[in-house]
Amino acid sequence: MMNDVKMTMDELIKLVDKKLDEFMTVQQPEDLFKSMRYTVLLPGKRLRPVMCLETCRMLGGEIEKAIPAACAIEMLHAQTLIHDDLPCMDNDDYRRGQKSNHKVFGEAVAVLAGDALLTFAPQIFLQNSVYLSAECKLKVLEEYHKFAGAYGVIAGQVIDIESENGKFTQEKQDTLKYIHLHKTADLFKLSIRTGAIIAKADNEKLSLLTDFAEKLGLAFQIADDILDEISTFEALGKTPGKDKTAGKLTYVSLFGLEEAKSKLICLFEECYDIINSNGFKSEIFTDIIEGIKKRVKI
Amino acid sequence: MMNDVKMTMDELIKLVDKKLDEFMTVQQPEDLFKSMRYTVLLPGKRLRPVMCLETCRMLGGEIEKAIPAACAIEMLHAQTLIHDDLPCMDNDDYRRGQKSNHKVFGEAVAVLAGDALLTFAPQIFLQNSVYLSAECKLKVLEEYHKFAGAYGVIAGQVIDIESENGKFTQEKQDTLKYIHLHKTADLFKLSIRTGAIIAKADNEKLSLLTDFAEKLGLAFQIADDILDEISTFEALGKTPGKDKTAGKLTYVSLFGLEEAKSKLICLFEECYDIINSNGFKSEIFTDIIEGIKKRVKI
Repeated sequence: MMNDVKMTMDELIKLVDKKLDEFMTVQQPEDLFKSMRYTVLLPGKRLRPVMCLETCRMLGGEIEKAIPAACAIEMLHAQTLIHDDLPCMDNDDYRRGQKSNHKVFGEAVAVLAGDALLTFAPQIFLQNSVYLSAECKLKVLEEYHKFAGAYGVIAGQVIDIESENGKFTQEKQDTLKYIHLHKTADLFKLSIRTGAIIAKADNEKLSLLTDFAEKLGLAFQIADDILDEISTFEALGKTPGKDKTAGKLTYVSLFGLEEAKSKLICLFEECYDIINSNGFKSEIFTDIIEGIKKRVKI
Repeated sequence: MMNDVKMTMDELIKLVDKKLDEFMTVQQPEDLFKSMRYTVLLPGKRLRPVMCLETCRMLGGEIEKAIPAACAIEMLHAQTLIHDDLPCMDNDDYRRGQKSNHKVFGEAVAVLAGDALLTFAPQIFLQNSVYLSAECKLKVLEEYHKFAGAYGVIAGQVIDIESENGKFTQEKQDTLKYIHLHKTADLFKLSIRTGAIIAKADNEKLSLLTDFAEKLGLAFQIADDILDEISTFEALGKTPGKDKTAGKLTYVSLFGLEEAKSKLICLFEECYDIINSNGFKSEIFTDIIEGIKKRVKI
C-alpha cells in the first residue's frame, strides 16, 4: 500500500501532476475545458495538494484515498488565480511565468472557466472517492464550501480589493490580518483539514493541525509579500513590485522588510513547535518551510 | 403536514421569498453579502424553486424537505444572472427592472458575489437539510455540480458567447439547440430532478420528468426569444431587442416569429402529454405553461 511508502516532495508533486492531467481531459465545449486545464496545469509547486496528501499520510491514512480531494483543492486554487488576475480584479497579465488565463482565452471564457472549476472540483472529488463513506464525503464537501466561499477565500479577496481602494472597515493591521487569514490561510486550512478528515483524525488533532495550517498560511503570505518586494520576474513568474505600485496593503508596506522577516521567522518557529511537540513526523512540511526560508533568504 | 396542502403559485412564491430572505442574511464582509443578496432577492417569478417544490409535492414528498434545495437552485440561478450581465459577457445594465449587480457593486464584487453563491448555495442546502439521508444529500449535490457546471449551464453560456462572435462548431440550428438545452433547460432539469429525488421518485418517473423539464426549458427559452422581439422594457425588466441588435442567435432570428410560436405551441402540447398521460397532477405546472402562453400571446 502507498501509505507505507514515504514519498519525497518531488514524487508527491509528480503524482499530483499526473492525476491533474488525467482529471482535466479536454471535453466539449473545447474552449471552456482548455481554459480550465490551462491554469490548473500551469507548472507549480502543488503546495496545497501536497499538504493535503502529506497530512493524510502523517496521520496514518492512505495517500491514494486523498488524491481526488487534493486535486480538487488545486482546481479551486486555480479558480482563485483565474478570477484574481481578471482586469476588474488585480489585472495581472502573467501567472507562473505564462500569460494569465484571460490573456489567452478572453475575459468571458476566463470568468466561466473559473465558475466551472468551482463545481468541477467537488464533482471530480465525489466521482473518484467511491471508497470514502457518504459521511466522510459530506464532511469534505462542507470544508470545501466553507473555505472556498463567502466565509473563506472570497471574504479575503473582497476585503483585499476594498483596502486597495482605501476602504478600511478596521485598523490597517487588523484588515491585513483578515485578508491574509482568508485569502491565503483558509486554503491551507482546507488542504490540511481535508487530509486529516480523510485519515479520520480526532478533533484534538484536527484542531492542532488547523492552528498549524493558519500559521503556515500567514507565513506563506508574508513570504509572498517579501518576494514581491525583493524578487525578479523570472524568479516570481509574475510582475514583481506590483503591490508597491498599486499602493497595496502588504506586510512589507505596513511593517517594513526587516519586521516582515522577523515575523516570518517567528511563525515558522511556532509551526515547528506544533508539529514537533505533538508527535507529527513530516519531512515534507520541513521541506516546505525550509524551502520558503531559502527563497526569502532568512 | 405541508404535503397534504396544495399551495397556489402565489403561496409557493411567497414561501420561497421568505426563506430566501432568511438564508441571505447580510454578514461580513458586508459588501459581498449585500451583493449576493441583492440579485437573489430581486423580485422574480421564482420559477425554478417553485418547480422543485411542486415536483416534490406532486410525487408525494414533503415540500418542507425540498425548501433548502429549492432556494439553493434560485441562488445558483442568481449567480448565472450576475455573471451573464457582466461587461465581458452580455453587458446588461438592467435585470428584472433594477440595475444589474455590477452596476451597483462594481465588477470586482459582482464577480466575487457570483463565485460565492456557487458554494453558498450547496452550503445552505446541506446546513438546512438535516432530515435528508447522507445518500440523498450526495445525490442532490451530484445533480447540482452536473447542471451548474461545465457540463451544464456554463457549457451553454460558452457556446452562446462564441456564437455571438460568429464562431460555430456545428450547424446554426444545432448550436442554438445546444445553447437552449444547456443555458436554460439544464436549470429546469436540475429543479425538477432535485424535487423528484427528495420525493424518492423511481428511475422511470425521474426519466419522464427529465424529458418534461427539457421540453419546458426549451419552450421557456423560445418564449424568452419571442419576448425580446415583441416586448417593452417595462414588461421585460431589461432592455428588449438586445438580441437582435447584438446579432444574437435566437429561435426568432433563425426561424422567424411565426415559426417560433408554432414550435412553442408544439412543445407545450408535448409537456401536457407527459404529465397528463402519466398520472402527474399539477395545477402549478399548468399555471406556469398557461402563464407563458399569455405573455407571448399564443
